[in-house]
Amino acid sequence: MNNSKYVVGIDLGGTKILTAVADMEGEILAKVKRPTEAKKSKDIIFANIKETIYQVLEKADINVEEIAGIGLGSPGPLDVETGVIVNPPNLELKDVDVEKELSEFKVPVFLENDANAAAVGEKYFGSGQDTKDMVYITISTGIGAGVIMDGQILHGADSGAGELGHATLDPHSDVQCGCGNYGCFEVLASGTALSRRGREAVKERKDTMIADLVADTAEIDGAVVAKAARKGDKIAKEIIDEVANYLGIGLANAINNFNPEKIIIGGGVTDSWDLFAEKVERVMKRRALDFLVKGKEITTSQLGSEIGVKGALGVVLLRLEK
Amino acid sequence: MNNSKYVVGIDLGGTKILTAVADMEGEILAKVKRPTEAKKSKDIIFANIKETIYQVLEKADINVEEIAGIGLGSPGPLDVETGVIVNPPNLELKDVDVEKELSEFKVPVFLENDANAAAVGEKYFGSGQDTKDMVYITISTGIGAGVIMDGQILHGADSGAGELGHATLDPHSDVQCGCGNYGCFEVLASGTALSRRGREAVKERKDTMIADLVADTAEIDGAVVAKAARKGDKIAKEIIDEVANYLGIGLANAINNFNPEKIIIGGGVTDSWDLFAEKVERVMKRRALDFLVKGKEITTSQLGSEIGVKGALGVVLLRLEK
Repeated sequence: MNNSKYVVGIDLGGTKILTAVADMEGEILAKVKRPTEAKKSKDIIFANIKETIYQVLEKADINVEEIAGIGLGSPGPLDVETGVIVNPPNLELKDVDVEKELSEFKVPVFLENDANAAAVGEKYFGSGQDTKDMVYITISTGIGAGVIMDGQILHGADSGAGELGHATLDPHSDVQCGCGNYGCFEVLASGTALSRRGREAVKERKDTMIADLVADTAEIDGAVVAKAARKGDKIAKEIIDEVANYLGIGLANAINNFNPEKIIIGGGVTDSWDLFAEKVERVMKRRALDFLVKGKEITTSQLGSEIGVKGALGVVLLRLEK
Repeated sequence: MNNSKYVVGIDLGGTKILTAVADMEGEILAKVKRPTEAKKSKDIIFANIKETIYQVLEKADINVEEIAGIGLGSPGPLDVETGVIVNPPNLELKDVDVEKELSEFKVPVFLENDANAAAVGEKYFGSGQDTKDMVYITISTGIGAGVIMDGQILHGADSGAGELGHATLDPHSDVQCGCGNYGCFEVLASGTALSRRGREAVKERKDTMIADLVADTAEIDGAVVAKAARKGDKIAKEIIDEVANYLGIGLANAINNFNPEKIIIGGGVTDSWDLFAEKVERVMKRRALDFLVKGKEITTSQLGSEIGVKGALGVVLLRLEK
């Protein structure tokens, strides 16, 4: 290690770039946010990224020479080993070598997919600080996961380990997932599942207030179903119950596969986790092996919208440790 | 490292103990087998283990002082970190500290569960030699697995990672597994599943030759169903097809969870794998994420009954490397 004293973390998302600089203990000194302009070109996206780096350094009064490394969390698929973003669905980036794009900073650039970066965020800044083996699962419109085993990110052969959102959870399901498969954990237990079941209930003219909460059925999303359930709506509660059952099965499977000390739940579902928690835990405990689930905890992420950038910072710190 | 030049591997099973000594390149110099006497006492079981060690050393003309370490593969649950066998169902062993029991050899003793040891056997001696990330799945009366990621065994918090045989594969199934859960991968896709479905077919008086191949329906096992299918029996073929479908889903889930380069199948099912292979691969490819399954191979283990002892040898070599 030279006399570099700071690390830069970048959360590259489909709508915004959030960049932060921290010291080697992970203390954040400054943050900068700007639009990604994801649908423009690679050059524009990377010009935007570089702009946030220079801005954040200026804000914290740090010279480029004092930076030890840059961490970049990005939607996948990507290749962690070669540092190449392959072809994320929502970004105009194809086979982009991130170290080359950021070569003017003359430091190592560590690429990580966003769910793995979030898991590292929990490990460095959140509820995973005291664990060696943990699974972070983000549940919003989709389900993504990052797995940390023995303190390291689980990558697998194509940086694709932990794609448990696309594991088949119900082989008889005729609900197709964006990935092409039927009955994935993601289509049965994400916000998309809540929204789909809510719309179906309205279409089938079930006795529910769900439709009354929106101007148009197209607006029915997970939050709307959760709101109806909170108001005592029986149909909404049944939908929550059904999705909680699938969530419990998916978490039990994660426990049997990875044997984590802790499961941390992030994403949109955390806002209404209290509606799901009891059933999820009950199903998980019934379905997972006793010796693996005993004493294990589910917690919800407390890092909010900063989990991505904190994760990107954690990724640099973790990789520089090696 | 001192001038020790050899390692001892022990495959501790419910019926037999198989012990081997090898040099540091894994070249096996001698082997010894004897009954476990599993239902007697801890003292008798360990006296038997020690006997095989002294015998194998004598056979290879090696002194105790030349041994660098001992690897012990045992049924779980067990704790790899503390080296304690907790309470395996088929062995009269409870909370046994293996290094203490084998302390007279004055070398480190590395404990590993049998499925993980088998995975290491494949890595050192079998079809996993060229891989960093692989999943070994043994399919006999049950389904066990050992996962190797980045060249290391995946352990998790309780040495229980890779218990994918007990992941729920069909949430609607009313078939109960020995673990207490319903619809586990193991009850739907193991030899036990073939045998159960075969017996059901006979009981339901379906048009099948399965009953003709045995003296008593209690004798119907996976091999009998496979034999009937080979003779063209339509019902037996349907059962194989159903089980192959579940196997394909289970392997797709393993790919999405762990992203291995290779899946290696071991256990009794390998004898009739040709009956399953095509359907398993088809279902697996349809259900796993494209970028994870593309170019990935399923192979069957070629190590036969020596996989356990070779695995135990591999475990010592792997742990001494660290």
